[in-house]
Amino acid sequence: MAGVLSALEVAQTLADKGIELRHPLEVIDFLAEEPSVFGMSCVGSRLMGGRIGREHLAVTSPNGETLADAIRRMGGDPDRLAEAVRGPGSIAAYAEVHIEQGPVLEASPGSVGIVTAIVGITRFAVTFEGRADHAGNTPMDRRCDALAAASRFVIHAEEAARELNSGDTYFVATVGQLNVLPNATNVVPGRVDLGIEFRSDSDAARESFERDILAFLDALGSRGDLRVSATKVSDAAPAICSDIVQGAIRNACGKLGRTAIELPSGAGHDSMHLVDAGPIGMIFIPCREGRSHCPEEWVEPADLAAGAEVLYEAVLELDARLD
Amino acid sequence: MAGVLSALEVAQTLADKGIELRHPLEVIDFLAEEPSVFGMSCVGSRLMGGRIGREHLAVTSPNGETLADAIRRMGGDPDRLAEAVRGPGSIAAYAEVHIEQGPVLEASPGSVGIVTAIVGITRFAVTFEGRADHAGNTPMDRRCDALAAASRFVIHAEEAARELNSGDTYFVATVGQLNVLPNATNVVPGRVDLGIEFRSDSDAARESFERDILAFLDALGSRGDLRVSATKVSDAAPAICSDIVQGAIRNACGKLGRTAIELPSGAGHDSMHLVDAGPIGMIFIPCREGRSHCPEEWVEPADLAAGAEVLYEAVLELDARLD
Repeated sequence: MAGVLSALEVAQTLADKGIELRHPLEVIDFLAEEPSVFGMSCVGSRLMGGRIGREHLAVTSPNGETLADAIRRMGGDPDRLAEAVRGPGSIAAYAEVHIEQGPVLEASPGSVGIVTAIVGITRFAVTFEGRADHAGNTPMDRRCDALAAASRFVIHAEEAARELNSGDTYFVATVGQLNVLPNATNVVPGRVDLGIEFRSDSDAARESFERDILAFLDALGSRGDLRVSATKVSDAAPAICSDIVQGAIRNACGKLGRTAIELPSGAGHDSMHLVDAGPIGMIFIPCREGRSHCPEEWVEPADLAAGAEVLYEAVLELDARLD
Repeated sequence: MAGVLSALEVAQTLADKGIELRHPLEVIDFLAEEPSVFGMSCVGSRLMGGRIGREHLAVTSPNGETLADAIRRMGGDPDRLAEAVRGPGSIAAYAEVHIEQGPVLEASPGSVGIVTAIVGITRFAVTFEGRADHAGNTPMDRRCDALAAASRFVIHAEEAARELNSGDTYFVATVGQLNVLPNATNVVPGRVDLGIEFRSDSDAARESFERDILAFLDALGSRGDLRVSATKVSDAAPAICSDIVQGAIRNACGKLGRTAIELPSGAGHDSMHLVDAGPIGMIFIPCREGRSHCPEEWVEPADLAAGAEVLYEAVLELDARLD
């Protein structure tokens, strides 16, 4: 919402001032940026980036509707989607305002963020198979406790992720999901299934972390009766924000007297799907306590205005500079 | 079942041989030793030990029946329960055959176990409250990850339990139940609820472990924003097997050429509720892979026969020795 309102404000201001740009200006309100019932986020921008094909249109929602039928129901024409695709190099520049969804900018009141890259994301499903035994009669040295093994993995992953945050590299790893079987107080855990994801603007850091955790899991699995398996669920490369758009945002901040803070985006955004269509960039604005996707999500009006002003100045500079 | 069959075999053998004991011999088939729909195990032995009062009779099952009504339905009379109670010192000796439900005896084929004590059990419910944050945009050093904290606790508890297994002390601790909230791959865990139980034949060891884990939780809770709470759910003292019954079982093993292995019981048993009525003792027999409470539970007929023979000889010795 912040991105659409900011873009409309820029268009309105240009019209109010009678400014005619050298390039055509488009304001885009992408459909379905959040994950939808089709198990897919960023439906609009994926389409525009040419990343949705026939096979995706046949995907069904839990109530049996295909994505093609849903597009028809919304007034679209799935047979004409190719017309919406922006080919490689077809966009002079792309810029988007978005709330940070994190706590970095709020610590520097009045600041604006220049996004350097949208992180790549890798996800693994990991299973630890031990042995469910009587919690009273099984001595400690006879156990094969799946939760004790999984706990060692959780801590190792957290510590390894902290170490990868050095210099310019942004790295986060999260074990957000963990299920114990049979999950009874008086039974030694026989099995644990967990999901781990890790995100970075550096492919080298993601590759290094992947090697590290797989080696750790191998070592765990070679002890006693424990069996460990890890399956890569998904792997998406990072999208790098272009120097020219970053530079225009930086100059806009300078002109407006705003503190500019460079930071990567740990969340995915529509812009990442247009990275082949032209140079992309993003302007982050602070949000309260970094909260997002919850009722507490909040942006101060002054920060929203600052984002729109920076976008306006950046558009003017990009229009002047680019062919 | 092994205990009832063994006791019947002893009575039958005494009758076959025309042996009249100095003491009256009772064969008891306790009702409802496993946890029942009334949330209580060992209903029969608790009654006989005088441990069930009016308040327990009013407890209802999930379908609304009271324990008193269930006893009536089975042909019992809840108003006459006091007549079944065996007061302090009213039993000359109590002995019971039971499968080990653990892996110790199976490692020494043909052996028989002399139970030294039935462990005391303490249970705690522990809650870790962190902060559910975006797994992409929250840097590692800004997180309050409830699962990372809970994992440290799981490992600490396991290591502390191993250390307490020294000399004659039997000690086990288990985190068998653990639930993560919101339990989503892309959200830093905001809350973890877990259940820990620990069992020992030594009150000192249980007290020491309780102090240790509470201090560890205090230390975890004093870091950053994490809030930790621990509630004691239950606490049952160990029941010590009497020297005289243990001695009779040991002598019986010697007479029969059986290897006798002393070990505590990590599981609860009917005998623990009769510890005030007289000296108690238990004979453990091996079971396959220590498995119990599952379809794989299995006892070799030869081991069952050995348990009955040891019980027979022990009964003869106790009858001769005791007043």
